[in-house]
Amino acid sequence: MNGPRTAVIGAGISGLTAGKMLGDYGVPYTCFESSDRLGGNWAFGNPNGHSSAYRSLHIDTSRHRLSFRDYPMPDDYPDFPHHTQIKDYLDGYADAFGLRERIEFENGVTHAEHLDGGGWRLATADGSTRTFDFLVVANGHHWDPRYADFPGTFTGQTLHSHHYIDPENPLRFKDSRILVVGIGNSAADITVELSSRTLRNQVTISTRSGAWIVPKLVGGQPGDKLYRTLPYVPLNWQRNVLHFFNIQSAGRPERWGLPAPKHRLFDAHPTQSAELPVRLSSGDVTPKPNVSRLDGSTVHFEDGTSGEFDIIIYATGYNITFPFFDEDFVSAPDNRIRLYKRILLPGLPDLAFVGFAQSTPTLFPFVECQSRLVAAYAAGQYRPPSDTEMDQVITADEQKYIGRMVDRPRHTQQVDYFLYEHDMRTRELPRGRRRALAEGPVPLTAATALS
Amino acid sequence: MNGPRTAVIGAGISGLTAGKMLGDYGVPYTCFESSDRLGGNWAFGNPNGHSSAYRSLHIDTSRHRLSFRDYPMPDDYPDFPHHTQIKDYLDGYADAFGLRERIEFENGVTHAEHLDGGGWRLATADGSTRTFDFLVVANGHHWDPRYADFPGTFTGQTLHSHHYIDPENPLRFKDSRILVVGIGNSAADITVELSSRTLRNQVTISTRSGAWIVPKLVGGQPGDKLYRTLPYVPLNWQRNVLHFFNIQSAGRPERWGLPAPKHRLFDAHPTQSAELPVRLSSGDVTPKPNVSRLDGSTVHFEDGTSGEFDIIIYATGYNITFPFFDEDFVSAPDNRIRLYKRILLPGLPDLAFVGFAQSTPTLFPFVECQSRLVAAYAAGQYRPPSDTEMDQVITADEQKYIGRMVDRPRHTQQVDYFLYEHDMRTRELPRGRRRALAEGPVPLTAATALS
Repeated sequence: MNGPRTAVIGAGISGLTAGKMLGDYGVPYTCFESSDRLGGNWAFGNPNGHSSAYRSLHIDTSRHRLSFRDYPMPDDYPDFPHHTQIKDYLDGYADAFGLRERIEFENGVTHAEHLDGGGWRLATADGSTRTFDFLVVANGHHWDPRYADFPGTFTGQTLHSHHYIDPENPLRFKDSRILVVGIGNSAADITVELSSRTLRNQVTISTRSGAWIVPKLVGGQPGDKLYRTLPYVPLNWQRNVLHFFNIQSAGRPERWGLPAPKHRLFDAHPTQSAELPVRLSSGDVTPKPNVSRLDGSTVHFEDGTSGEFDIIIYATGYNITFPFFDEDFVSAPDNRIRLYKRILLPGLPDLAFVGFAQSTPTLFPFVECQSRLVAAYAAGQYRPPSDTEMDQVITADEQKYIGRMVDRPRHTQQVDYFLYEHDMRTRELPRGRRRALAEGPVPLTAATALS
Repeated sequence: MNGPRTAVIGAGISGLTAGKMLGDYGVPYTCFESSDRLGGNWAFGNPNGHSSAYRSLHIDTSRHRLSFRDYPMPDDYPDFPHHTQIKDYLDGYADAFGLRERIEFENGVTHAEHLDGGGWRLATADGSTRTFDFLVVANGHHWDPRYADFPGTFTGQTLHSHHYIDPENPLRFKDSRILVVGIGNSAADITVELSSRTLRNQVTISTRSGAWIVPKLVGGQPGDKLYRTLPYVPLNWQRNVLHFFNIQSAGRPERWGLPAPKHRLFDAHPTQSAELPVRLSSGDVTPKPNVSRLDGSTVHFEDGTSGEFDIIIYATGYNITFPFFDEDFVSAPDNRIRLYKRILLPGLPDLAFVGFAQSTPTLFPFVECQSRLVAAYAAGQYRPPSDTEMDQVITADEQKYIGRMVDRPRHTQQVDYFLYEHDMRTRELPRGRRRALAEGPVPLTAATALS
């Protein structure tokens, strides 16, 4: 083993794939995980509090699209595996590639300090301090709940979807007037689950912006099997076509009383739910526009109506947070962080990020693809362009992937997996390899050289 | 008021529409209802035990198609009303047309005897006996549970979907291994409800024959709004077209491990469920073929597999039962009863049936349409053809509506609402009126004449 001594923060899907790829490239690394188990978000009831999984959660990406490229899901898995199956799969992945022995469990990074000449000093939960040459941040972006900031005060109970488990946990969601704020996948799932007439709740869903609600199955098959974005056809045209067919098959959200989306399908991450439109069409769920004001147990909406509620569930997404960085060093205010290929921060060559994107339609092979570049970079087989060029490409990529989108924290990380992966495979990695050969790799062993 | 003194058995949708129409035609009638309330199947928790409604039940026909022609549903009703809203609607219907005062509540007919010269002697629950000229049987066909008859003995708990209320009633359906037998709407709804991961059940669905599973919403709208069967185009062609489009949009049940249907869409009543295919594709529900044998807690299936179960729920439909008739007088063995237009029994002119059909896509205006003929008949404004001709038409109609169908009790009553209603309006009623004018009405006042 040679190459920079590398630290990976987190042993969720991003940290695991980073570790797997670093290992493949012979880069020595240590993975720091705050929990006693791997899997991060997919470790239901994770003692580190970083799992957002509810008891009934099934992934909204089909097995077909979800599998890591180098570790397919078992054949006996259903199309949409349960979170327990995802966890088993990640355990199998770690065992198959010997990843566990490189993970320090219950030893999260508490502080990461960038050294003047390059390299890192990491303080960890066990009280020790160690230096590394290269740092891979893979601590995820689905664990720090983001709340909506409405004027006024609500005197009922409030929780974030992150803490929702089932109709009896953490609150007893029965015989209650419940307001779900948001229209993402968690909002849809929780709204459907709690609006079952068997629980005798009255459930209202309030959303600021519209979302396209698409079924998991189209023509009886996982919808995400039916298309892939093509690299040599303008994305704009492709989205128009998908948008058209989606309206024919799934319909417009206005039909069920939800706000009209201001964007096309796939301009933002769509919400997958076969059941939410049925619940809205059955009167089991009441749609409302955005909240304008809270007042005791009363919630006022922007259309002038109001309602009485016992519980508000904020399914309003997550903050991108790096608790181990000083805030004025690296942070992502409003979930904005300008990363080259959503990986490299211009100006800090010994730092890489994995998994900070909302990749449609699949995340697992996306982080695997990012990890491949990170490992090639650490091994000296990839060199990024200059900071100036990186900066230009970041702007161009943002324009490409999220240019049409409304300016909201939820959408800052939108990426099309197919185009991203194609760009990586056919352009970015070969070009980076040629740059590394021509200009030499970026030196990443400052801390090792120092010691 | 003149015309035959008429008795109506039952105050569900069939009895109520019969009463409404008899009233419109000035026919004196009394409605006998065993319960203390009207609504029959739609009176959730009906004390007479004749409601099959579970707590979460929404009708699978959209409001648009469900409304009685002469009493539209309120505008603020959702597309798919809840059973409580159907009950309110029926209460409103009864109040609007003064039907309540003609109903004897808690006074069901215990025995109906046909008098030699015509007319009826009815014994009722209050112990009295009364004679009537004309009898309308509207006691429904969704209250006498039909069980599957599998060899062997099951030692776990067994119930029929008729008795299912919610996940806590009448059994505690949690942490249990549950087998649902059947693939109709109740089977689908109960399977979905009990397979929620929040209940920690293991749910298996076993079905003998295949069924097409269609979503409630197509293109975001109630699917039943998107088509109507046309009277002058061969039904066969229309079913082929609908069948083709359905496979494109909803897919084939084999995709989710269910048996391949041997019929086309609408050859039999389809099963409406957006969620069952998703549950099957998520591994939350295990599909199995028909049961071959029961043995203690083990259930053997026809594919040679077996499983252990705590509970079997039979969602296997209902018997057509006339408990007030002597069985050798009038009965429906295997749900077969040859009725002219599903109303008149050749040879018994002073008897009519309302509501003994599985009308697709809607039942409410269907019973209303039947009631219109019954009332015209009682008022002497309609005369059926001869018994011989009726018999020929019954055979032709069966061939038309259920000719292609597998020979099962569930399908003996299949009728296409649109064709039925068109036939009634444009042919049967005008022709019957001409026959009544030419030949005179059928005499229906034997009992009155006698007294």
